[in-house]
Amino acid sequence: MNHVVELRSDTFTLPTPRMLRAAAEARLGDDVYGEDPTVTELEELSAKLLGKEAACLMPSGTMANLAALLTHSPRGGKAIVGAESDIYVYEAGGAAVLGGVVYEPIPTAADGTLPLDAVVEACEVDADDPQFALPSVLSIETPQNRRGGIPLPPAYLAEAAAVARAQGIALHLDGARIFNAALALGVPAADLAAHADTVQFCLSKGLSAPIGSMLAGDARSIATARRIRKMLGGGMRQAGMIAACGIIALNEMVDRLADDHAHAARLAAGLAELPGLRLDPEPPRTNMVFFSVDRDATAHTTASLIDAAHARGVRMAELGRDRIRAVTHSGVTAGDVDRAVTVLAEVLSSAPAAGR
Amino acid sequence: MNHVVELRSDTFTLPTPRMLRAAAEARLGDDVYGEDPTVTELEELSAKLLGKEAACLMPSGTMANLAALLTHSPRGGKAIVGAESDIYVYEAGGAAVLGGVVYEPIPTAADGTLPLDAVVEACEVDADDPQFALPSVLSIETPQNRRGGIPLPPAYLAEAAAVARAQGIALHLDGARIFNAALALGVPAADLAAHADTVQFCLSKGLSAPIGSMLAGDARSIATARRIRKMLGGGMRQAGMIAACGIIALNEMVDRLADDHAHAARLAAGLAELPGLRLDPEPPRTNMVFFSVDRDATAHTTASLIDAAHARGVRMAELGRDRIRAVTHSGVTAGDVDRAVTVLAEVLSSAPAAGR
Amino acid sequence: MNHVVELRSDTFTLPTPRMLRAAAEARLGDDVYGEDPTVTELEELSAKLLGKEAACLMPSGTMANLAALLTHSPRGGKAIVGAESDIYVYEAGGAAVLGGVVYEPIPTAADGTLPLDAVVEACEVDADDPQFALPSVLSIETPQNRRGGIPLPPAYLAEAAAVARAQGIALHLDGARIFNAALALGVPAADLAAHADTVQFCLSKGLSAPIGSMLAGDARSIATARRIRKMLGGGMRQAGMIAACGIIALNEMVDRLADDHAHAARLAAGLAELPGLRLDPEPPRTNMVFFSVDRDATAHTTASLIDAAHARGVRMAELGRDRIRAVTHSGVTAGDVDRAVTVLAEVLSSAPAAGR
Amino acid sequence: MNHVVELRSDTFTLPTPRMLRAAAEARLGDDVYGEDPTVTELEELSAKLLGKEAACLMPSGTMANLAALLTHSPRGGKAIVGAESDIYVYEAGGAAVLGGVVYEPIPTAADGTLPLDAVVEACEVDADDPQFALPSVLSIETPQNRRGGIPLPPAYLAEAAAVARAQGIALHLDGARIFNAALALGVPAADLAAHADTVQFCLSKGLSAPIGSMLAGDARSIATARRIRKMLGGGMRQAGMIAACGIIALNEMVDRLADDHAHAARLAAGLAELPGLRLDPEPPRTNMVFFSVDRDATAHTTASLIDAAHARGVRMAELGRDRIRAVTHSGVTAGDVDRAVTVLAEVLSSAPAAGR
Repeated sequence: MNHVVELRSDTFTLPTPRMLRAAAEARLGDDVYGEDPTVTELEELSAKLLGKEAACLMPSGTMANLAALLTHSPRGGKAIVGAESDIYVYEAGGAAVLGGVVYEPIPTAADGTLPLDAVVEACEVDADDPQFALPSVLSIETPQNRRGGIPLPPAYLAEAAAVARAQGIALHLDGARIFNAALALGVPAADLAAHADTVQFCLSKGLSAPIGSMLAGDARSIATARRIRKMLGGGMRQAGMIAACGIIALNEMVDRLADDHAHAARLAAGLAELPGLRLDPEPPRTNMVFFSVDRDATAHTTASLIDAAHARGVRMAELGRDRIRAVTHSGVTAGDVDRAVTVLAEVLSSAPAAGR
Repeated sequence: MNHVVELRSDTFTLPTPRMLRAAAEARLGDDVYGEDPTVTELEELSAKLLGKEAACLMPSGTMANLAALLTHSPRGGKAIVGAESDIYVYEAGGAAVLGGVVYEPIPTAADGTLPLDAVVEACEVDADDPQFALPSVLSIETPQNRRGGIPLPPAYLAEAAAVARAQGIALHLDGARIFNAALALGVPAADLAAHADTVQFCLSKGLSAPIGSMLAGDARSIATARRIRKMLGGGMRQAGMIAACGIIALNEMVDRLADDHAHAARLAAGLAELPGLRLDPEPPRTNMVFFSVDRDATAHTTASLIDAAHARGVRMAELGRDRIRAVTHSGVTAGDVDRAVTVLAEVLSSAPAAGR
Repeated sequence: MNHVVELRSDTFTLPTPRMLRAAAEARLGDDVYGEDPTVTELEELSAKLLGKEAACLMPSGTMANLAALLTHSPRGGKAIVGAESDIYVYEAGGAAVLGGVVYEPIPTAADGTLPLDAVVEACEVDADDPQFALPSVLSIETPQNRRGGIPLPPAYLAEAAAVARAQGIALHLDGARIFNAALALGVPAADLAAHADTVQFCLSKGLSAPIGSMLAGDARSIATARRIRKMLGGGMRQAGMIAACGIIALNEMVDRLADDHAHAARLAAGLAELPGLRLDPEPPRTNMVFFSVDRDATAHTTASLIDAAHARGVRMAELGRDRIRAVTHSGVTAGDVDRAVTVLAEVLSSAPAAGR
Repeated sequence: MNHVVELRSDTFTLPTPRMLRAAAEARLGDDVYGEDPTVTELEELSAKLLGKEAACLMPSGTMANLAALLTHSPRGGKAIVGAESDIYVYEAGGAAVLGGVVYEPIPTAADGTLPLDAVVEACEVDADDPQFALPSVLSIETPQNRRGGIPLPPAYLAEAAAVARAQGIALHLDGARIFNAALALGVPAADLAAHADTVQFCLSKGLSAPIGSMLAGDARSIATARRIRKMLGGGMRQAGMIAACGIIALNEMVDRLADDHAHAARLAAGLAELPGLRLDPEPPRTNMVFFSVDRDATAHTTASLIDAAHARGVRMAELGRDRIRAVTHSGVTAGDVDRAVTVLAEVLSSAPAAGR
């Protein structure tokens, strides 16, 4: 059987041989006692890369985001989030369910930003009126996944930070793929992180580590988040084994994200030629291509297209209603991209299977 | 000093002399033990009027709505609400804060309805995917306060109920002013309530009772809500004293809501003549008039207008950004309405006070 | 039919004629807007009587206690409570369920106190160790209901306050019947309240008001509790109607609690003569008599005794396993007490009904 | 420097070389998509070993216990736990804080069991009375850590299960070290697990895997727990890397627990000879030795003893007030045990350092 071209997500990245070796050779301890030297090394490296005082290893980005919201928001506080943000759409409402935080979603603009006048309006409730939950944290996301993997402009981050400061609320940055954003913008990740009180990024997406996300911020916030992590059940014992992979990820896998971006551009260019597909008008800025099926030009539906491509070894996913996302990563070569284009061309030139 | 014309809300209504007498003469017991006969009478009367199996007295509409959401929604469930609904905007996010329910606000249409395709979309999450909170309840509001006190068409309620049923979720009706809606539509309140699993209505708004709201529904839901009421601290001892007022409210104060509607129409007509105000284009359907200050035609701001009217004995409130609401009720006569128009005319013809 | 002797609880007290008149004549406003002058008067009177800066009317003691725990305890904080306290046993775990507060029950001593070394031990967790919830509030109860209505000695309250202060946690006093305690001790209620940050007392128990409890404390705590009250649904509109009864309760019904204490003593003395009953060894200090059925001396069970007395018009309740509680109050005369003794004597001299 | 004898906990165990090799060679996928074959293999193996339908990998025992309590308990339900259980003492009250579950701790007996009459009493609340949280789950622990690592008798587990079934509540078994219990009792772990609805056990304690605990149970409970895991942030991507270690742990590290038990017995025998220590009277049944400092026989305190031993390379921890716990595991040899005894003898024969 042919090699599968896995474009559903960069979460499918596999650890590199050097990661596996590092895991096997890592000095380990019990991190719940704070005694795993490899975890400590990863946390210090992460903090340094993002220009923050401290960082904490989490089993997932979901937990890192959740711990951040609970750190910044007391019971009954309000988290202002994007209606199209991952933290609101894909994390089961955890901060509300588990922590009594009220999400206030505001529309995510086409460019991935949250309009700051809407943020201000969400903040400007009468603090003496008990009808209203009081705002505590603003969460923004870069690159913005559901808006096409767009990196938010640094100037926007600065303005959002100024608004948050003026309103007396914290700014959390969901930077799951922050190194992709930094690369696309040509700035260090720390420049993006500088605007936020806390920043989450994933080791397990484009950086290709098997497990883990980091939450970085000021020492006090991270100490609080670490306490919350334990309660959530995110304290892991010899976590140095996965931290060792994370260290390699940060040291060796950041620069190569440029390949993923080039591959995404190549994929977009290829798909743009195919009748029957409608690509997002802007070329990809990071490692994602979004497109939809042009029902006027093909008998295929979103589902039939995905299924038929899957049957031919090319995997993509629906993300949002009738939008298809293809994500490039360390497991996808230029040849894989070309094969994906070829496969989609074949699929579009054949009739959809009955029933889809 | 002149009598104040209180148009901020119909929650300012005072109990009638007959209510006060009924309160003084009521047979009482300890309702926490289920032994207050007057409470029982009010609950049975309420259930009957709304065509439901059971009803439960609550200290407020906020608690009735909260208990309903918690009754229908387990921890982690999703409540689909209008972005402009009172249950979402004015109740401090209680179901999220206290009960781990995730609100999913969807835009409230100009006619007060929640577009049902958006409701369906909010429901159609992959139930096997743990990224998503699972929908448990849809809440709709009639008359819709922030859309001008519009009564939702019965046909819409029927469709919403069909959608909820098809999606396997409960339908809660926030009918704080359901008798105003029923009157405007010329149907019995029970016809509106028939579509919902639970219905909340307030005794303390247009119906003029001093305290209390009712939650009505099937016997099982109301039993659950009653349990939740106790935990929230809504169990009251000799609650018959306020229930007695509620009985009078239901028996004697429903039909007279027609006067309030007539007064609202009269007020709207009067205000429409005033340069400097912009009325909502539709004439009021129930007991509320919404308008805003036309900054092109007057130097007044929303705040200066409200303050100046207040100083002349006419009280109104900002409800939403730069919208003013005036509500008619049993404490407002036709003469009061005329006086309000006169006062606003005076205010608009004079310069605003410095600083506002 | 004979008048029923209601000894199940002092929550069965009915409002006095003067209360009903006061309710009918009260100046009213919308208390959710803070504009009900009678509520304000009651709150100021309550604060003054307890020597606190502020007070807030609540629909029930359950809500007053719940709001106090949430005021003092952030999400994840620990409330140290008595294992036999009403706040732990009878309030559905509200602070845990609704507010994410962890109750740590410690054994209530026979004299109603919580041993302070156990309190200290519950506080002395390693604050840096995230395994532990951090203590935030200590709640004590006087008079202690389930220990016989015992008033805690003022010296104990002072020591408990010192411990709380030293440990950096708040002290909440569940003084549902604080005026009974003060009377029994011969001190002003304010002397007892002085030790606590917040104090709850009920208007609707011995003081005979129909509805309501007060939470008193420093201005900041009460402002927070008032915000929480709104979210819980405890904001009531023309609450002056019930506040008027509360004012009468505080002005006219406190001193007469001496009668209830005398009646409890009379009841205890009468019951002590009856073979088949085992009274708590200490004579009642306030308005409660606890006893149990001596199964060696009678064929009656707790249930059969209660049922048979009930059938003869004397109502008592099981409170705790096989303990019966009889409570005196404004609805119970000396003659009623004598009748209760007579009825119990009759019951004990006859065989229990089959099946119980 | 000498090798450290680490007796603080068996959570300090390091992965074996075969585990590291297995991790490096494991087939991986994205487990959040359910596509990691090694995780699936571990889950199936775990389920089979415990005789359950399904199992789910969790990042920690804390999360496994938390997910179990939330699975069995709706908002407002009551979890009956031991006052000396790890789930109550060491897990930050997570089910209350995050899930609105009320813990009801009942005293843990000296033999580690929860007296079943107390369990019944905790269950027998009046289900119609909203004062009470309704019981939903009973959690028991074997071996019982804070009672000395005692394995609960299978007959007790059977009785507890019968009580839970009769009361209509679930039985959760915190079997963090269930294979130690099974070994001590000479029965398969499945025989112990058979009584419970869900069972938690740790791969990262005596079994020496670096990370992870398993929750096993019926398919429906595990599906629910898996959903909760995602919300808590316990979904991990290429978790096969740690699952591979877990498979080795289950296949190769269970039988050798006998060494740990023998070493614990040897340690207890050695310490029993030392004047100045008071051992728990029962010999260790599993891999833990508890003792305290006999203040009548030595000038040492708990702290000075631990510190002095630590300085000499033997690490132990205080567990509970003035009790010291020493745990044997795969990193502790018979020689290490002898050295620990020697070191403690030396420490006791010398004066404590000033200030402790």
